[in-house]
Amino acid sequence: MSTKSNFVTVCLKGTSQVFFMENILTGLLFFAAMAFASYTTGVWATTIGALLGVVVATFVAQIVNLDKESVNSGLYGFNGILVGAALPTFVDVSLQLWFYVVIGAAASTIVTAAFSSTLTKTWNIPGSTGPFVLTAWLLVAGAYSFGGLELISEAPALSTDYTQGQVMLPSGMELVQIFFKNIGQVYLLGSAISGAIILIGIFIASRPAGVAAMAGSLIAMVVSIGMGADPADVSQGLYGFSAVLTAMAVGVIFLKPSWRVAIYAGIATIVTVFVQAAMDVTMLVDGLPSFTAPYVLTMYLFIAPKKLAAPHPHRVIQSEHLTSD
Amino acid sequence: MSTKSNFVTVCLKGTSQVFFMENILTGLLFFAAMAFASYTTGVWATTIGALLGVVVATFVAQIVNLDKESVNSGLYGFNGILVGAALPTFVDVSLQLWFYVVIGAAASTIVTAAFSSTLTKTWNIPGSTGPFVLTAWLLVAGAYSFGGLELISEAPALSTDYTQGQVMLPSGMELVQIFFKNIGQVYLLGSAISGAIILIGIFIASRPAGVAAMAGSLIAMVVSIGMGADPADVSQGLYGFSAVLTAMAVGVIFLKPSWRVAIYAGIATIVTVFVQAAMDVTMLVDGLPSFTAPYVLTMYLFIAPKKLAAPHPHRVIQSEHLTSD
Amino acid sequence: MSTKSNFVTVCLKGTSQVFFMENILTGLLFFAAMAFASYTTGVWATTIGALLGVVVATFVAQIVNLDKESVNSGLYGFNGILVGAALPTFVDVSLQLWFYVVIGAAASTIVTAAFSSTLTKTWNIPGSTGPFVLTAWLLVAGAYSFGGLELISEAPALSTDYTQGQVMLPSGMELVQIFFKNIGQVYLLGSAISGAIILIGIFIASRPAGVAAMAGSLIAMVVSIGMGADPADVSQGLYGFSAVLTAMAVGVIFLKPSWRVAIYAGIATIVTVFVQAAMDVTMLVDGLPSFTAPYVLTMYLFIAPKKLAAPHPHRVIQSEHLTSD
Repeated sequence: MSTKSNFVTVCLKGTSQVFFMENILTGLLFFAAMAFASYTTGVWATTIGALLGVVVATFVAQIVNLDKESVNSGLYGFNGILVGAALPTFVDVSLQLWFYVVIGAAASTIVTAAFSSTLTKTWNIPGSTGPFVLTAWLLVAGAYSFGGLELISEAPALSTDYTQGQVMLPSGMELVQIFFKNIGQVYLLGSAISGAIILIGIFIASRPAGVAAMAGSLIAMVVSIGMGADPADVSQGLYGFSAVLTAMAVGVIFLKPSWRVAIYAGIATIVTVFVQAAMDVTMLVDGLPSFTAPYVLTMYLFIAPKKLAAPHPHRVIQSEHLTSD
Repeated sequence: MSTKSNFVTVCLKGTSQVFFMENILTGLLFFAAMAFASYTTGVWATTIGALLGVVVATFVAQIVNLDKESVNSGLYGFNGILVGAALPTFVDVSLQLWFYVVIGAAASTIVTAAFSSTLTKTWNIPGSTGPFVLTAWLLVAGAYSFGGLELISEAPALSTDYTQGQVMLPSGMELVQIFFKNIGQVYLLGSAISGAIILIGIFIASRPAGVAAMAGSLIAMVVSIGMGADPADVSQGLYGFSAVLTAMAVGVIFLKPSWRVAIYAGIATIVTVFVQAAMDVTMLVDGLPSFTAPYVLTMYLFIAPKKLAAPHPHRVIQSEHLTSD
Repeated sequence: MSTKSNFVTVCLKGTSQVFFMENILTGLLFFAAMAFASYTTGVWATTIGALLGVVVATFVAQIVNLDKESVNSGLYGFNGILVGAALPTFVDVSLQLWFYVVIGAAASTIVTAAFSSTLTKTWNIPGSTGPFVLTAWLLVAGAYSFGGLELISEAPALSTDYTQGQVMLPSGMELVQIFFKNIGQVYLLGSAISGAIILIGIFIASRPAGVAAMAGSLIAMVVSIGMGADPADVSQGLYGFSAVLTAMAVGVIFLKPSWRVAIYAGIATIVTVFVQAAMDVTMLVDGLPSFTAPYVLTMYLFIAPKKLAAPHPHRVIQSEHLTSD
């Protein structure tokens, strides 16, 4: 087995780690989901950015000598791939954008190591996609200052300008679309078919994780519609992707699954939808998307209490818990 | 003694813990203060919300198996009662509001456990009302997104729109009103008589705590008027409630009282008034009240330095310092 | 040697610690740089505020019994001097301003001790100018609320109102000016000559530190111009001062210098320019300057990973790492 093929393997594992998996085939399917979305929209910069992101982040992790086991499990790749996918989603293509993606992906590896040396080492809280959120917020905010970068995203606004929805019930077909988009949006993909491909990828790696993802998507749908969230956001899956991650993380990945934990994860998932509603308006003032921050904050808070958080023996999680020193 | 009466006892202790006390009669007087304010304004949702909040928060703490001694001291109830009192103060009554209060109070218990497992365990800094502030900020911000929730509060604005006061001197009667409202506003009550009832409740549980509360209210009055804060805010007691908590916490609750500590607490109280001024304008951009955040931030910073913070032997504090694991 | 002369010595060391040095002559030169800028602008309040700040902060550190070695190295003075220099830069002179400076400088010492007892003690991350940033943000924000304080600074605005630059190349003379202003702005001085005096002061204390400061200024210039940052900000040195501190801190002060570390520090310096761009727009919403926050955040993240951060044997750093307990 050559070093080059090993590197590809690690990158694909990193791709699958966005959903807590460590599976090469799952990683390939996730790339297929991104490519499908790029094919339908005609925008390939996001898929290329994701590829560049995971390669740079993994490469930097190897040269700065981080913990080998964590690096090889792809745990230093998933924040980089998200940075690489997110930047071209919100910033127009230019020479400076690609410089931005390279430095951003490299920084995501350092930030991941920083979270690992503090949050994980002292409190056993996994950094998860926190480093992606921090890095991407800073880079998207910075784009407002740089003439070499043109923002695609909406303009900043005060919270009272936010569109409130009505308590309404979408049609059956719409509900199915929302169900899958809730999963696809973790990779910033507004395509139901991409979401379905990702869900298949998750099931290939872990059946309980797939069930948790489905439950998270359903809970998010019910709560966001019942509370009267903006239908435009709900139908794009924007109220579901953080909830999907919370349901998986709290329900089966970082805690040992049980009925007790299932109820605990259910409450965490509802709270994630509330936090999504909160962050969408507070980040809007800065003209920034909330990314997976609602998941990250809720998961940190629900995993921190030690008594509740008996560490899960699952291999992936142990890796996630491994610190860089 | 039946289990039910025990539960009621724990809830009343939780009610008194908002002011660091662990006293059933004090808790009853605090509820009397809330009921009096509801009677005069005709708005009962806040008192009902508070009741619901402390019941749910305490119940969740019992079922998730948190440290028994802390739970029984009411330390998992005071953040819940504040969440329950705050939400109906800023959001109109609806079915969704009560769902919000229940999930919010439950979440406040988890967040309290999270603060305990991190902030308190590693640095011996009490979480205090930090979990209330975080939970209430997220829920009030989320209300802007949900059509099922209608905000009562003022609209967000930029800091330059903030009304600056003149350096002026209110009349003697106004000063007396402010003195008591500074205490009542900890429970979000704009009633001087409610403030007086609460002060009596504090004195019943601890004379030094009562003296500290009075000193905090006086310092806040002098500093806020001398600096020229908005008279409308000063006269509503909005510059005093965080200062009252800081004076109590730093002066007698978390540090061992002495002349040295009294001066230290005095500086902390002045700083709290400055932080109040800062947070009122910065949170206004997000359309959020600052709640007790000025107290929480200042107290964390003044309690963190270990040499200065010889732990107080008082029973309440020891409980507050107990972590859930 | 009298106690009084010792106190003066400690204050001058504190003055030099803004650039990580512990050198009396360097401290004198830094005051000369401030005085020169005051002389050219006619505004002496900043230099007087700096003097008052370092005296109060150092005095409070002595009376609250913080770790003697750290106090004597000036490590409890440099945040106070920055608070004292920053407040009169953004707030007009009044009786309340001087009260603000005194309480603010005193608070900066407590906040420094708090950072030391948490960030440094648990994770070996130096607090550096983090306490200044936090204290100064709160005080400048608070000035919007107080009628006794008049803000000089620009009005708050949303990120889309931010002026983007064009990718352009300033003339040779402008580049020289920017090079030195990048250094002077650490002390909030927009004078190239003040920057040059400061650079001489750094070289007197440490040649590697001086080289790192120069490299940081150059990198910031190239990156900010290449990315198309607002030329008005670039030419005032506002894109460089945080980068200068990052280059020094990561390159020679907190890590052991090597080629590996030099490249690592280079990436950190580029990231600092991006974070500067981000914070300039996000803090603008609150009407606040970003101060040295871009340096502080980037340095924390790049120093946190333990494997990368073999502590530097240099005396200054060891002191910086010393906690107060």
